Amino acid sequence: MRKSLLFLLVFSPALSFAQNTPDENLVQYVRPIIGTQRMGHVYPGATVPFGMVQLSPDTDTIPYEQNGKYNPDVYKYCAGYQYDDKTIVGFSHTHFSGTGHSDLGDFLIMPTVGELRMNPGVASQPGSGFRSAFSHSTEVAEADYYKVKLEDYNILAELTTTSRVGMHQYTFPSSDNAHIILDMVSGIYNYEDKNIWTFVHVVNDTLVTGWRQTNGWGRTRTEYFALSFSRPFIEYGSRNYSKKQVYRGFWGKFDQNHNFPDIAGKQIRMYFNFRTHEGDKIKLKMALSSVSTDGALLNLRTETPGWDFEQVKKQGQDWWNRELSKARIDAGRDEKENFYTSLYHAFINPTVYMDVDGSYRGLDQVNHKAEGFSNYTTFSLWDTHRALHPLFNILEPTRNADMIRSMLVHYDQSVEHMLPIWSHYANENWCMSGYHSVSVIADAIVKGNAPFDANKALDACIATSTHRDFMGLGAYIDKGYVPAEISGTSVSNTLEYAYDDWSIAQAAKKLGRMDVYAAYMRRSQNYKNVWDPSIGYMRPRLADGSFKKEFDVLSTNDQGFIEGNAWNYSLYVPHDPAALIGMMGGKQQFVRHLDSLFTMELPDKFFAETEDITRDGIIGNYVHGNEPSHHVAYLYDWTDQPWKTQERIRMILTKQYRNTPDGLGGNDDCGQMSAWYIFSTLGFYPVAPGSDQYALGSPAINGAVLHLENGKEFVIEAHGQGEKAVYVKKVLLNGQPLTRRYITHEEIMAGGKLVFYMSEKH
Amino acid sequence: MRKSLLFLLVFSPALSFAQNTPDENLVQYVRPIIGTQRMGHVYPGATVPFGMVQLSPDTDTIPYEQNGKYNPDVYKYCAGYQYDDKTIVGFSHTHFSGTGHSDLGDFLIMPTVGELRMNPGVASQPGSGFRSAFSHSTEVAEADYYKVKLEDYNILAELTTTSRVGMHQYTFPSSDNAHIILDMVSGIYNYEDKNIWTFVHVVNDTLVTGWRQTNGWGRTRTEYFALSFSRPFIEYGSRNYSKKQVYRGFWGKFDQNHNFPDIAGKQIRMYFNFRTHEGDKIKLKMALSSVSTDGALLNLRTETPGWDFEQVKKQGQDWWNRELSKARIDAGRDEKENFYTSLYHAFINPTVYMDVDGSYRGLDQVNHKAEGFSNYTTFSLWDTHRALHPLFNILEPTRNADMIRSMLVHYDQSVEHMLPIWSHYANENWCMSGYHSVSVIADAIVKGNAPFDANKALDACIATSTHRDFMGLGAYIDKGYVPAEISGTSVSNTLEYAYDDWSIAQAAKKLGRMDVYAAYMRRSQNYKNVWDPSIGYMRPRLADGSFKKEFDVLSTNDQGFIEGNAWNYSLYVPHDPAALIGMMGGKQQFVRHLDSLFTMELPDKFFAETEDITRDGIIGNYVHGNEPSHHVAYLYDWTDQPWKTQERIRMILTKQYRNTPDGLGGNDDCGQMSAWYIFSTLGFYPVAPGSDQYALGSPAINGAVLHLENGKEFVIEAHGQGEKAVYVKKVLLNGQPLTRRYITHEEIMAGGKLVFYMSEKH
Repeated sequence: MRKSLLFLLVFSPALSFAQNTPDENLVQYVRPIIGTQRMGHVYPGATVPFGMVQLSPDTDTIPYEQNGKYNPDVYKYCAGYQYDDKTIVGFSHTHFSGTGHSDLGDFLIMPTVGELRMNPGVASQPGSGFRSAFSHSTEVAEADYYKVKLEDYNILAELTTTSRVGMHQYTFPSSDNAHIILDMVSGIYNYEDKNIWTFVHVVNDTLVTGWRQTNGWGRTRTEYFALSFSRPFIEYGSRNYSKKQVYRGFWGKFDQNHNFPDIAGKQIRMYFNFRTHEGDKIKLKMALSSVSTDGALLNLRTETPGWDFEQVKKQGQDWWNRELSKARIDAGRDEKENFYTSLYHAFINPTVYMDVDGSYRGLDQVNHKAEGFSNYTTFSLWDTHRALHPLFNILEPTRNADMIRSMLVHYDQSVEHMLPIWSHYANENWCMSGYHSVSVIADAIVKGNAPFDANKALDACIATSTHRDFMGLGAYIDKGYVPAEISGTSVSNTLEYAYDDWSIAQAAKKLGRMDVYAAYMRRSQNYKNVWDPSIGYMRPRLADGSFKKEFDVLSTNDQGFIEGNAWNYSLYVPHDPAALIGMMGGKQQFVRHLDSLFTMELPDKFFAETEDITRDGIIGNYVHGNEPSHHVAYLYDWTDQPWKTQERIRMILTKQYRNTPDGLGGNDDCGQMSAWYIFSTLGFYPVAPGSDQYALGSPAINGAVLHLENGKEFVIEAHGQGEKAVYVKKVLLNGQPLTRRYITHEEIMAGGKLVFYMSEKH
Repeated sequence: MRKSLLFLLVFSPALSFAQNTPDENLVQYVRPIIGTQRMGHVYPGATVPFGMVQLSPDTDTIPYEQNGKYNPDVYKYCAGYQYDDKTIVGFSHTHFSGTGHSDLGDFLIMPTVGELRMNPGVASQPGSGFRSAFSHSTEVAEADYYKVKLEDYNILAELTTTSRVGMHQYTFPSSDNAHIILDMVSGIYNYEDKNIWTFVHVVNDTLVTGWRQTNGWGRTRTEYFALSFSRPFIEYGSRNYSKKQVYRGFWGKFDQNHNFPDIAGKQIRMYFNFRTHEGDKIKLKMALSSVSTDGALLNLRTETPGWDFEQVKKQGQDWWNRELSKARIDAGRDEKENFYTSLYHAFINPTVYMDVDGSYRGLDQVNHKAEGFSNYTTFSLWDTHRALHPLFNILEPTRNADMIRSMLVHYDQSVEHMLPIWSHYANENWCMSGYHSVSVIADAIVKGNAPFDANKALDACIATSTHRDFMGLGAYIDKGYVPAEISGTSVSNTLEYAYDDWSIAQAAKKLGRMDVYAAYMRRSQNYKNVWDPSIGYMRPRLADGSFKKEFDVLSTNDQGFIEGNAWNYSLYVPHDPAALIGMMGGKQQFVRHLDSLFTMELPDKFFAETEDITRDGIIGNYVHGNEPSHHVAYLYDWTDQPWKTQERIRMILTKQYRNTPDGLGGNDDCGQMSAWYIFSTLGFYPVAPGSDQYALGSPAINGAVLHLENGKEFVIEAHGQGEKAVYVKKVLLNGQPLTRRYITHEEIMAGGKLVFYMSEKH
């Protein structure tokens, strides 16, 4: 079939293949289970595109610390679920997708029968708590649908969501002793004392509201809920696991543990009891809000007025199909599973962060209303500025503009007067280096996707990049680099600031603010200040101007870098590869450097040090599982050997992405890894967001049609593409030979056709 | 002068004395220092009538527990200030007036010079912290104005307020090292871990916002602030005293301790540095809100647009004068000081609890808007239903109706579907017994002060009084009394429920709901069910109907009573004294019982057990410092010896109220003790709120004019009244002899004149 389809494509240019299969439901290719084993840190549960609720099983909820010491196992549970686990503790409503540090896991729900157990127990002791064994054989994970049998209780659990409501459907056995547990002690990255406060009101026998306030990665984070039951519970109660309960005024006035509707404390679990017949379905709707329990109720009533689980699931999957249809590809099933699961992971976050009426909790902890835009949160910008937001500028430009509007209100609400660094849920967590909001904003401005106030946005970029108190910025402004004394990641900081500054310059140029352009182009050259020509690497530099003596180009620990060593970061001048190549001794020497990156054999200690990736995530000294090298394979395009870009890209696509639970070699990082896959599979990549150019690589599918929001279609064809046919012999853009190694954003958005002719030989 | 005035009064009935001195500023008679020594538990600081801010010095802020044990000294600091203390730790913005348990003390401010000290230190070690010595010789406490010299720093501190803003004026010496400390660790009744969370944003160099969330008497209480400085601080910083700080994301990105504007944690203190010349005044405006920092900012900008301290003070004192002028009395200076200080204490609480736009935090922890009424909080109803709210029905009827509207929104927001028991700051603290909201509501309905939805209010009373899970109510409904097994205060509960039920019946009758009337009149007879005729006392009764064997009529500890023993509580049938007298063996025996109450000598252990009062607060076995006996002296009115009411009342007035720091023999209890004083001084008292009758006592002044909101005047004259002339020989109402021993509410509100003719002989 592929051949005949290809025939049609080649000879009927007006009739794209995608149009031949308009009804193919792309949801079938989404396999949320991909990446749930080991380092992917994605979750298999239910969510709609950019949904505020991520309802997913947690296989463990272990403490961040044990006996006062960091518990390294907590890292496995960044997304709550590990594929190799044998038990599920419950289903919670908020999850990050692919992060390497974590938070959330709010409002864990667990259905049980038999003796009431209020403690989750431990995995190694079956029956020690309310957790249940499960098996992958009964597990179904689809876009916005998850199903599993809870074996200890013979309960079939099903989950689906709307944007702000998680819907549960539990099919019970016959029991006089059926329970729904609401565990507010549970959470992801549960520090001791992470719960600041929890609060529950049992409004009536089918409605419960409340909130959880935590001090974790989000320092001051509050999530509100409204939980509706499809049938009345017979009785209910609570346990307070707080070490200390201060006020005893309630005691003696009420039995607080049983049928008492007004519960608050630091560590609360609730139970709700039912009697069930065999096959009885108890359904739950859990609505979230960042604003108030009233906001959650509004979301509940607006998004899920009824109890038809199948309808909610269908709505969610139809929505996914519409979103996924923005890129219809011609490829085999494995490739489609990889591609559409990547697109799914790319379209999970940033997440909507407002009630249906636009209300949301701001960074200033005040409730605001989003006027004229949708407010988003979860900005993992160190990761996602590279490819995810550029992908949005093509496939989700309206959302991307709203994400930038969300960054701008963050800026307005920031008492530091800064754009987000890594922000989530009304909190700035300050994670990672650089100020990459500016890249996202500049990319949108340069690419003409700036319906927001672009000059105000540029002002915010300038304010952010001139905050002298922020992580060495004062010294960077004065000296042109961050001195090693100030920061353990001084070189990463310098290089990332320099790139970010270049992106600010590009936006300024587009807006005609040439003084800003000139100033920031000067700053963008600062990468040169941490280049040590004597060794040919970027290197930490002290305040006195000398380079730091002790230095290991392979190590990442406290060597001036973050999630990358000098080898990798020395290639981090995405905005000026030509100059970098010159600095590194010219094209030939540069190619040798790149080649050795991909082929060298590393000492074991290097693997031990490298964060957030499996050993599979490393190719030679190239670490695909971490982001600083995501542009590196494309740098061959700036040399005389672009075929090596094509070869390396295909090798990375094959080695680093598989449609299996362990198919992701590193954290998906809120969609950045997936966005890399999508771009690279389509045959081009944004090496330097803020530029309107995409470097050409090697398309790994037979063809694709991008259905753009402006109504245009951009068609990609890869003639003769195959496992070995990875080399690009010729490229036609709209029928004309393309002699440059990039296409522009304007060319894509204008609609048209990009045809690659592939070969097994370079 | 008094004589000539009396002459005028007697012979010129159309010309009341008050009209002769229309310009006398009554603020001169308010001495907030009265009751600040020992048990009064009032505060000397600044507040406007019913003000949301109570800005007052705290002389210590000691922990509720030390080494895990209750620290009995904390009780002294219910209002933050103890007259005998020698040091002040600072000035905080929220204080209860006269309570016997406590909370609040939010946002302590302390100005200092010299070495920066961030710890309050201890009183016994001068210079050990930022606290300062002070002397009463430099202290001035007026209505809405407080001044003191902070001797350690030679700083003159002055305080005044608007309803929602506390204004500080600190006159500094010359110093290069002047500081304002903002202590958010400090608080009243500071349990370990009472602070759930605190949050500070330094918005700019003159504006700071934030909040404090506590788990104390108010289980889930949050107070927001906006703090404005009259001049920019040079630098600022914070200390985090939390035992544990979870997220370290900020660290390395910023120096969090110095000039970093974004601070959060459990235990935070801030400092703000200045350079001052001799005599420089640094002024602060601290606005509060229950809603948000934005709400506090709104309050700040609306109520205090400028920086004129004297103007704010004058506004506040003018307001006080207007409120106090509602009762103009003819009396000596001492009596006026007692009277107007009592009126001041009566008009302090309940306190306004909403922003200038009507927004307030509801009991459901959701922000609401008060539409068409002012929202109030701090309902110490076990105390204040007795005389304070009845006083409001005369002098503050509009406010009293709004207080009831506030109770009704509390009811709407209550997940228990109950009216307030003891509520403050969006929390129900459930303190004390009974459900006395119903008394306040019934009193207003019966007295025709019910512009609210009276039928809905009655429904709320019914719902509250039929909540079977509440403190023995189910058994009370079934058996007619609270069994001793259920509650350690079973007799108090039964008696108070019975009275409350009677008040519900009265409201129902007024509203024509005769079925409710009948049912609640039946319930009102339940006091008979805890009467043990074999001993002639109310007595704890077991579920099986038998009376509890072990029983001490003098003891209060776990004997079935609260803040009163069997002796006192056996007289607690305020709604049916005649029946009580009959039950107790007739008038003669009843008089003997009453007489012995006032004259008996008690064993020492009784004093040790009695809460909330000094030994001076006890007359025989009559405990005026606690409320259950407040009606008792008036019960002689139902016997043949009403002159004993007159005599006892005057004795109590003299012994229990003095215009000295130690002038209150017990907790003022949010104005109840003061309201008792005001009524009794005027010559009548509401023995059973819910009745429209006031029992006549013995007026302790020469005369009074009550200026009513309806424009009428009610004039009281006491001819021949004097220290010994305490007996009422004759009463004329509007010129007609009054042969009954009460007047009605209608008679007061119609305006008119009540003339007592006093004598030294009964």
